[in-house]
Amino acid sequence: MERTLELCCELIQRASVTPDDAGCQVLMMQRLRAIGFQCTPLRFGEVDNFWAVRGDSGPLLVFAGHTDVVPTGPEEAWDSAPFSPTLRDGMLYGRGAADMKGSLAAMVIACEDFVAAHPEHPGRIGFLITADEEGPAVNGTVKVLDYLRQQGEQIDWCLVGEPSSSAELGDVVKNGRRGSLGAVLTVKGVQGHIAYPQLADNPIHRALPALHALSLQRWDQGNDFFPATSLQISNINSGTGATNVIPGELTALFNFRFSTEVTAADLRRRTETLLDAHALDYSIDWQLSGEPFLTASGELVAAVVDCIREATGLETELSTAGGTSDGRFIAPTGAQVLELGPVNATIHQRNECVRTADLPRLAGLYQGIITRLLCQ
Amino acid sequence: MERTLELCCELIQRASVTPDDAGCQVLMMQRLRAIGFQCTPLRFGEVDNFWAVRGDSGPLLVFAGHTDVVPTGPEEAWDSAPFSPTLRDGMLYGRGAADMKGSLAAMVIACEDFVAAHPEHPGRIGFLITADEEGPAVNGTVKVLDYLRQQGEQIDWCLVGEPSSSAELGDVVKNGRRGSLGAVLTVKGVQGHIAYPQLADNPIHRALPALHALSLQRWDQGNDFFPATSLQISNINSGTGATNVIPGELTALFNFRFSTEVTAADLRRRTETLLDAHALDYSIDWQLSGEPFLTASGELVAAVVDCIREATGLETELSTAGGTSDGRFIAPTGAQVLELGPVNATIHQRNECVRTADLPRLAGLYQGIITRLLCQ
Repeated sequence: MERTLELCCELIQRASVTPDDAGCQVLMMQRLRAIGFQCTPLRFGEVDNFWAVRGDSGPLLVFAGHTDVVPTGPEEAWDSAPFSPTLRDGMLYGRGAADMKGSLAAMVIACEDFVAAHPEHPGRIGFLITADEEGPAVNGTVKVLDYLRQQGEQIDWCLVGEPSSSAELGDVVKNGRRGSLGAVLTVKGVQGHIAYPQLADNPIHRALPALHALSLQRWDQGNDFFPATSLQISNINSGTGATNVIPGELTALFNFRFSTEVTAADLRRRTETLLDAHALDYSIDWQLSGEPFLTASGELVAAVVDCIREATGLETELSTAGGTSDGRFIAPTGAQVLELGPVNATIHQRNECVRTADLPRLAGLYQGIITRLLCQ
Repeated sequence: MERTLELCCELIQRASVTPDDAGCQVLMMQRLRAIGFQCTPLRFGEVDNFWAVRGDSGPLLVFAGHTDVVPTGPEEAWDSAPFSPTLRDGMLYGRGAADMKGSLAAMVIACEDFVAAHPEHPGRIGFLITADEEGPAVNGTVKVLDYLRQQGEQIDWCLVGEPSSSAELGDVVKNGRRGSLGAVLTVKGVQGHIAYPQLADNPIHRALPALHALSLQRWDQGNDFFPATSLQISNINSGTGATNVIPGELTALFNFRFSTEVTAADLRRRTETLLDAHALDYSIDWQLSGEPFLTASGELVAAVVDCIREATGLETELSTAGGTSDGRFIAPTGAQVLELGPVNATIHQRNECVRTADLPRLAGLYQGIITRLLCQ
């Protein structure tokens, strides 16, 4: 069996539903130690993580990824058992095949082949692997980055193995993600009988102009990589249920998806300034899910774009669309961060699969990128 | 025992929680038949009502009222049993003492004394009594008015026995009430993921400017008897609870308390015009609780104001404040309608009570008003 496929199957067999690593990381560390990596298991809380590095000095290229997978849902809905990797019609089926055990296997094989060709390579190669990407993401990548900061490590380039491709391997690379900032706004009024509005203070009437102004606000124009920042009110609730009572309080939840043209702090300040200008008696709780990040250009982008063109003939699209990934934690360290992995059409679904032929091709892409960044 | 007090006690002993009349009306009809009234019991659904009339021709003065009372709440919260009339410190305690069995007793005694003095009086005196004023008000006064219309009866003057007084008997007479019009507004959008607002249509964002405009609208300026019409949004709800979902629908409940400067039809038309101008996809359900009514002047006002001044020395205040009463149904027939009854400080509460001395004084006021309207 082809080596990347074989390793991917071994990983799929290990039923590593978040936060259970189920032995995936031990297997990866065995392979990496065999080619000279120094491996450091880093368990935080109930989450297994590891850091591995090869090379003595020079720029640091890190492969980042996660061994955990999302639950299978009802197993009877699958055409083959989700943790029994199955080859059918040119595809490899199994939970995690695309998200992201195929990428993990390709990273290991790429390093094995690269080290065989360049046993004394310049620069350094690292692995930052967690089993808590699909879960709360508290005891995973964030804690490993704390550890690296304490060690004085600075990542120069980071390839995240998230399944970025749309129709063909390499057609899309994610070079950033929008930020996500949530708010719970409570506007206070004074409850009273609807027949005596002069004795009450209707928080709905108070909140309407402020919320309307928020919904109309242009937060930025976006830029070449991001659409304009969007605010959406997801929930609004006030009222006792009775039709003759002015309520005492209104609650509204809203969420920003924001570009790199603004920061979460900007949005908080501008929102609160607007609310203050409406003379509201309010409280607001903010929840920052992630600042936006962007790797617009640089050596990593050049290497990835060129390698994809050479290997596939595709002009890859750099995209910031979609949900969050652990890249949001790595980019603020100053690293250039890109996400490159297989086609994502089946991730988180029943019958998750990856094209069998794409596994060695992805390993080849990763190997080409290492070579270009460290040896040229 | 003084006669008005005695009859009031007999009525309180009959535990007539809506819609149960508990024999109050039979007692009243016995007393009225004894002085020459023709009494017609009118049961609609589960509600007892009656119509009584004395006299052959001439203008018709009607006493309107209800024998039903609101529930007592926990009886242990009362200082004496709510259906055991109790005299204490110059007050008569019991459920209905103020709202409005004291008034019913005073009406009967007033007629007894008036008939004794004027057995062949000109004009006519009527009673329109229901046991469904505190409840849905469907099978009560409305249905009796239907019956009277079929009989060709036209009420000229109507005294409703609602407890109108504030600090002293007769200090306030209600000469109208605001109208009440409710609406349930549903604004439709398209649900979607908050990360892709361009694929959704947020009904909260759609509704905000329209609701804000509604809340700012001046519907009228009021007039000498009514404050300006007031719109209050009592409830607003939208959202799935999730912070990453744009909801598909918003619901808002609002209520107009409106003056005689506008009609319910005006308010509906102007509201819908405003909503249409905001290009909303909406539906709206209207609920008219009552048109406003006003008896600004006339023989009834003059008689009541003069009788109160003569008996108490008070310059009574004509007021349209407060909630609804069955007067809203009677006024549209063309009758002059006033509400005059005892102090309302304890109505609907525990330890409901009426000043014992006010009961014969109220009977005297009613008798004076009959005399003035029919004999002068």
